[in-house]
Amino acid sequence: MTDTVTPDLIALHPTAQAQLFTDARTANTFTDEPVTDAQLRAIFDLAKYPPTAANTQPLRVLYIRPGETRERLLTHMADGNRAKTATAPVVAVLAADTHFHEFTHRTFPIRPEMRDDFAADPARETMARFNAALQIGYWLLAVRAAGLAAGPMAGFDTDGVDREFFTDTTWRSLLVVNLGKPGPDAFPRLPRLDYDDVVRHA
Amino acid sequence: MTDTVTPDLIALHPTAQAQLFTDARTANTFTDEPVTDAQLRAIFDLAKYPPTAANTQPLRVLYIRPGETRERLLTHMADGNRAKTATAPVVAVLAADTHFHEFTHRTFPIRPEMRDDFAADPARETMARFNAALQIGYWLLAVRAAGLAAGPMAGFDTDGVDREFFTDTTWRSLLVVNLGKPGPDAFPRLPRLDYDDVVRHA
Repeated sequence: MTDTVTPDLIALHPTAQAQLFTDARTANTFTDEPVTDAQLRAIFDLAKYPPTAANTQPLRVLYIRPGETRERLLTHMADGNRAKTATAPVVAVLAADTHFHEFTHRTFPIRPEMRDDFAADPARETMARFNAALQIGYWLLAVRAAGLAAGPMAGFDTDGVDREFFTDTTWRSLLVVNLGKPGPDAFPRLPRLDYDDVVRHA
Repeated sequence: MTDTVTPDLIALHPTAQAQLFTDARTANTFTDEPVTDAQLRAIFDLAKYPPTAANTQPLRVLYIRPGETRERLLTHMADGNRAKTATAPVVAVLAADTHFHEFTHRTFPIRPEMRDDFAADPARETMARFNAALQIGYWLLAVRAAGLAAGPMAGFDTDGVDREFFTDTTWRSLLVVNLGKPGPDAFPRLPRLDYDDVVRHA
C-alpha cells in the first residue's frame, strides 16, 4: 500500500483498498490459468449495480475466447496491442448501445414515455457513450474484485471492430480489455497527478 | 446482499462487495453530518490509481460547499435536481481537462513527444471525456469506500456551469454529484438488465 493512502478515513477494509485501487495493476501478460464463464457472469453481477443516468445501463460486452473470432479481432488492434491480445485467456470488447432506450420499459418502468423522449434526443449517443464509460470504470474494478487483472486498450480501429462484430446491432465499441491472471512482469507504475493538480475547492 | 451475487467466485470480501456494489445506493437526501476536507482528499488518494489511456488522468473536480458559490451552481441545475443540491454537505462538479496533455511530461515522462502528439490530435477532447468518465466510475466507488453516499446528476446546463466556473480553465463539466451521509429515504432500486441482455460470447 502506498504512503498517500489514509486508511483511517476510508471505511473500506485495507485489503479491499489494495485489491481494487492501490495495489492492483494493469496486466500486459497473463498466466495460462483459465477464466471461466461463471467468473465472467459474477463480474457482471457486481458491475451492474452502480448508477447510470436514468438507470439506462448502456454498457454491452462481447467476450472473445481464443480461436477464429479472436484472429479477426487482432487485425483491428494497434501493432503494440496485438501480441498481448493474442495471448490473453479472454478478451472483452466493451461497447455502448446507442439504442439503450429500447430497454427503458424494463429499466425505468414508472416512466414509459422515456423511450420516445430518448428516441428523439440528438444527445442520445453521447449519453450512451458517457454512461457506458462510467460502467466500464465499475466493470474494471469488478474484474479486480474477481481476482483477475485487466489490460485495457484504446489502441484499435473502432470502425473496423464495429463492422466486424456489431453490424447487426446498435453497439459501438469503446475499449478492448484483456482478462486473466496476471503474469509476473508488470511495468513500473507511472506517476499519478497530485491532489492540487486536479482538485479545486470553492 | 442480493441473491444474484456469487461470492465464491469473487475474491473481494463480501462486506466490501456490499459496500461498493450490491448494497450501496444513490442518495437523494443527506444527514447534517459534515464531510471533511480530509475525507475528500482520501477519496482522491484511492480514485487516482485505476487506469486511464496513456496514464492521462483527465478527471478534474471542483468541490463546492454551502454559500454563495453553491447558489450560483443552483441556477444551472435542472428543476428536479435543485432542492437536493441545495442541501447536500458538499457538491462536486466533475469535469474533463481538454488540455490534459499539459501534464504528460509528468504522467508519461518516458515519452515526452506525447505532449505534442496530443496537442495536434483532433480526438483529444473525446479522449478526455471518455477517460474522465472512466475515472468518475472509479471516483464514485471511492466515495462509497469512504463511507459516504453519492447522488450523481446529469441534469444541469453544462455550458452554463462551464461559463460560471471554468472560463479561466480548459475544464469541461460532465457530472454534478452530491456527497454526504445518506438520509433515510432512498428510492426503491430500479431493475438491472439481465446478463443475456448485455453480454455476448464468441
